Order: sequence, then C-alpha cells, then structure tokens
Amino acid sequence: MYVLVIGGAGMVGRKLIERLARDGRLGDKAITRLTAHDVVVPRPPEAPFPIDTRVSDISVPGEAAALVAERPDVIFHLAAIVSGEAEADFEKGNRINLDGTRHLFDAVRLVEGYAPRLVFTSSIAVFGAPFPEAIPDEFFHTPLTSYGTQKAIGELLLADYTRRGFFDGIGIRLPTICVRPGLPNKAASGFFSGIIREPLAGQEATLPVSEDVMHWHASPRAAVGFLIHAATLDGAAVGARRNLTMPGLAVTVGEQIEALRKVAGAKAVARIRRAPDPVIEKIVSGWPRKFDPRRAIALGFVAETSFEEIIRIHVEDELGGRIAD
Amino acid sequence: MYVLVIGGAGMVGRKLIERLARDGRLGDKAITRLTAHDVVVPRPPEAPFPIDTRVSDISVPGEAAALVAERPDVIFHLAAIVSGEAEADFEKGNRINLDGTRHLFDAVRLVEGYAPRLVFTSSIAVFGAPFPEAIPDEFFHTPLTSYGTQKAIGELLLADYTRRGFFDGIGIRLPTICVRPGLPNKAASGFFSGIIREPLAGQEATLPVSEDVMHWHASPRAAVGFLIHAATLDGAAVGARRNLTMPGLAVTVGEQIEALRKVAGAKAVARIRRAPDPVIEKIVSGWPRKFDPRRAIALGFVAETSFEEIIRIHVEDELGGRIAD
Repeated sequence: MYVLVIGGAGMVGRKLIERLARDGRLGDKAITRLTAHDVVVPRPPEAPFPIDTRVSDISVPGEAAALVAERPDVIFHLAAIVSGEAEADFEKGNRINLDGTRHLFDAVRLVEGYAPRLVFTSSIAVFGAPFPEAIPDEFFHTPLTSYGTQKAIGELLLADYTRRGFFDGIGIRLPTICVRPGLPNKAASGFFSGIIREPLAGQEATLPVSEDVMHWHASPRAAVGFLIHAATLDGAAVGARRNLTMPGLAVTVGEQIEALRKVAGAKAVARIRRAPDPVIEKIVSGWPRKFDPRRAIALGFVAETSFEEIIRIHVEDELGGRIAD
Repeated sequence: MYVLVIGGAGMVGRKLIERLARDGRLGDKAITRLTAHDVVVPRPPEAPFPIDTRVSDISVPGEAAALVAERPDVIFHLAAIVSGEAEADFEKGNRINLDGTRHLFDAVRLVEGYAPRLVFTSSIAVFGAPFPEAIPDEFFHTPLTSYGTQKAIGELLLADYTRRGFFDGIGIRLPTICVRPGLPNKAASGFFSGIIREPLAGQEATLPVSEDVMHWHASPRAAVGFLIHAATLDGAAVGARRNLTMPGLAVTVGEQIEALRKVAGAKAVARIRRAPDPVIEKIVSGWPRKFDPRRAIALGFVAETSFEEIIRIHVEDELGGRIAD
C-alpha cells in the first residue's frame, strides 16, 4: 500500500508518519511506500518501508497532479494555513486552503480509473456562535473566520467529489489538540496547551481567561488514531454524509488545572500565572465548547475520556515519562 | 440608485426588472440606472430610468470587474447553471456557479472603499435527505447534487466576505418557483408547474409521481418580493448569519390538484394524465418537502399561504385573467 501525507511536516503529520512507521501497516495492509509532502522539508523517521519527501506548494497548478500521478492508495490531506494566518492574510488563506484543496481534489478526479481513500482534516472552526449546549451532528455551518469558511468549503467539495465517485473521501473535524508539544506560540488557543505543557517542564505559563471557560480537546495520539481509523473504515457505513465531528473531551480550564494537580502536584499548578486578556476572552467566547458527536462514536472513533489521561499521554509521548520538579 | 442584475435574462431576473421598472424605486430610493447582465441578450421593459444591457460570461477573468467598476449600489446575483445541467456537466457547473460567483465577490472586494448590498439567490438544494419533518433554520447542508454544493459554497463565501466588510451580502434560498411560466421543460421538477400551467391553458399535462408527494413552493411574484426585501432590509437585523431559507408553502400534489379544481373546475383537472415515472419519483424523494423558516418570517419575508393564491397569481400575471375552457 502506497500512502501520501500532504502536510507531512506539521505536528499532526509528523506524528501520523511516526505511527505508520512503527506499525508498518495501515489497517490490514502492509505499507510499501510513503511520500511525505509539505512546503517545508519533512524529516521522516526510520521506517520498515521507503519514505520519500517532496517540497512544493499545492496551490501552484500542476503540483497536485504530480503528487497523485503514481496513484497513492490512501491520501491524507492535512496541509493548511492556520486560523490566525488565514484571518490576517485573506488571499493566502484562500489560495492554500481553498484553491490548494480544490486542485488536489481535481488532480485525483482527472486520473483515469482512480478513486483512492482521501482523508481530509477539517476543523470545529466550521461552526460559529451562538451554539446549543452540545452541538449535534446535524448543526449548520456558520463559520466566523475565513479559515472555518475554507474548511467548510473543503467539506462540501469532499462530499460532492465522493458522491460522484472521483475519490472515496472522509472529512474529520478535529478537536483542539491538547497537549500540543513544542514551543509556546501566539495562537489565541495556545494557552489551553501552555498551562499544562509549561508547568510539566518546570516553566511558568500564562492563563488569559477565566477558569470557567470550557473547550473541546483530544490528544495528539487520539488525533492520529482518528486519521488511521478514517483511512481504514468502511465507506459504505459512512453513507452520503462524509464529514464527521470527531469525539473529544469537553472540560473547563478549572478542570484542566485540577487534572494537572492530580498528575503533577501543587507545585506544577503554582506555575500558572493569571493574566486576564479581554481580547483572548472575546475570541474564545465565539468558539465551540462541547459536541454530541454520535455518528463518529458509532463509527468507532475513540477519544480520551478524562483530562488526566490527556496529560499522561503528553508525559509519556513527549517527556519520556518525566515531570519537572 | 444604480442597480445591477446579473442573470437579468432568466425568468426571475426578467420579472425582477419588470417590477423595478414599474415601481421606479427600490425601497425608499429612486432608481437612476439599471444594468441587466446575462450570457444571452436581456430584453428589458420600458422603464422610468435608463436600462443598459451587457452580455458576457462572469466566469471569464476581468468580466466581473468590468461589471462592478461603476459601483452599483445594489447587486442582484441570480446567474447560475441550473441543477440538471450542473449535474450533467461538472466542470461547467463549477466554472459558472462556483468560480463565477467567487470572481464576482472578489471583483467587489477589490474596488476600494466599496461595500454594496449584494443579494445572492441560493437554493433549497443545499439540503440533502434524510430530513426532519420540517427543516429548521439551523439544519446542516449536505447537498446531494453538484448544484447544491456550488450554492452552499456561495453561501459560505457570501457570509465570510460580508463579515470582512467586502460587501453587505444577503443569501436567500428560494423555494421551487410555481407556477413557472413558459414552455414545459425536462427538469425533474417541471411537473409541479406543468400540472397547473398546461390545464389552465387548455393543454394536457403529465403527472409522473403519486399525489402524496409534498413539495415547497412560492410564486414568481413572491420570489421577486423576496429579492426586493433582501435588497432593502436592515443588515444589522440579520446579524452574522447572512443566508436565509425563504418562506414558502408545503403542499402535496393532491392539494395542488384540489386547488386547481377550485380555481378552474373539473374540466381543467381532467387534463392531468397520470404516467408514473420511477426515475422522477426517486429524484423527487431526495428533495426537501417542508421548512420551518422562522428567521426569514421574523425578518419580514412573505410568501403565499394557499395554493389557490399561487394559481390565481399565475392567471393574473401570465394569462391576463383568462382560463381556457
């Protein structure tokens, strides 16, 4: 089986490729080749199958066609300009997130007799406030960002191209990934990971919102699990509605902090510094907090059920089991 | 006030321009100029203001920019490849309905300091079965045609371009227009109008589905009313959710026939010939039947409340008040 990962240098892409390298297979099929694509050079791990890397911009005409010319059996399309950048640079966001996705879908369409499984990472940013208490699977899309608009358009195209038999697509709306490894960044959502990651590493973290703010989380390990399940599940069981809200865990910031206390003690919690920021409070208040993702759960997608579990996964996968004193 | 009608040669476009010519104004402002645009030559009526016509393809780069260069105050974007053709010719449907719409939106965006009211006709084809008994305003979009997909994408772009201040957009999802004037056509929905229009004109009509099929209707006159209300209502009252399901009338084919009997008698009803067509039955079974369009009603959009009223409008507007013996 030949696997193509577009966006293979990003956090989720790297973790997906690591997992595939470790498993040597996707579902019940051995992987014989993998291509990791991104706009920056991917650094794939050792693997029991050859991995080649490609660097290009899928929004440039012809690039997508070159990527799919050798007919990968499964395509993971993870590449995107993130929310903040797509909002700051409207034309770039549309070029990459909208045109890039459409070019890829059309490139697959134009390969004769070819209909691979295509897994597309959408986002809960397709939803816009006001929301019901828990957002049901049939809730409409009224994104409040250009990023969410572009992802919602990708979902519509994916469903139509699948209906027409051009490929066999599954779109998955990822929760906020927590604990996100790496350095703190300026994303408005960064603090959800920061208030766990920095204290576990002995660093101070800033909390810009109140403790009653609720949000929707899954670990990086769960996100990789979603991708693999989406790549291998029976398309017939999914039916015509190809885009799914992934399961996740709705917790308040206060509950995150209590979980941190249980896993790492009061000393870790003491490293969280309150610094209320009305701008971030306002942005976050427009985000979805909680879902009722029955379809994905019925289809076998699995997320964490406690925030302590999410923290322990970070400690295992990123810190080699060690918590800073 | 300068008004631009894109799709001005179509049935709804012509009726809109006739109404504007009759009124001489849009809301409380006198119309000083109107441009009717289409891919075929529009034939505008006499009017108390100058009407110029333009013929071009808005999917060709530069055409949309030329149309908006003189800054129309209100733009009606009614142009589209219809459902059947967009399904038969995927690339043409995407080129006109998706790229054409995006080119227009971008052309408006790129005119400095310009943010006109833009009214976009979407469709109930953005919805796909299975449905609840009456589709609520927050129901999600899972179109089952490429036309519905293209319209749903237009809605998403309209909302985002409005949010960013590029224009002041309102998207309206029209019911099936009934009684559609003119010759019978091969659209799968054609019989909903045909079984009324042909008998009133003394012709035989074919009914390919059973009498318990329910559908969602509004008259051409109501559709023009929706467009004018959308062009003149207060955008602040609409808020961030810029796309609205229009009100309509949910009736069964049997109820349509009973209304025809009341308006035109048993002789007219006798001109309906039953010819069940399983292909059309199947297509129609995937269409929405009934909505609960509370937002549009609260915002002041008005449709007919009986099918007799819909028939009488056709007799008045198209037949000069005369029903065939």
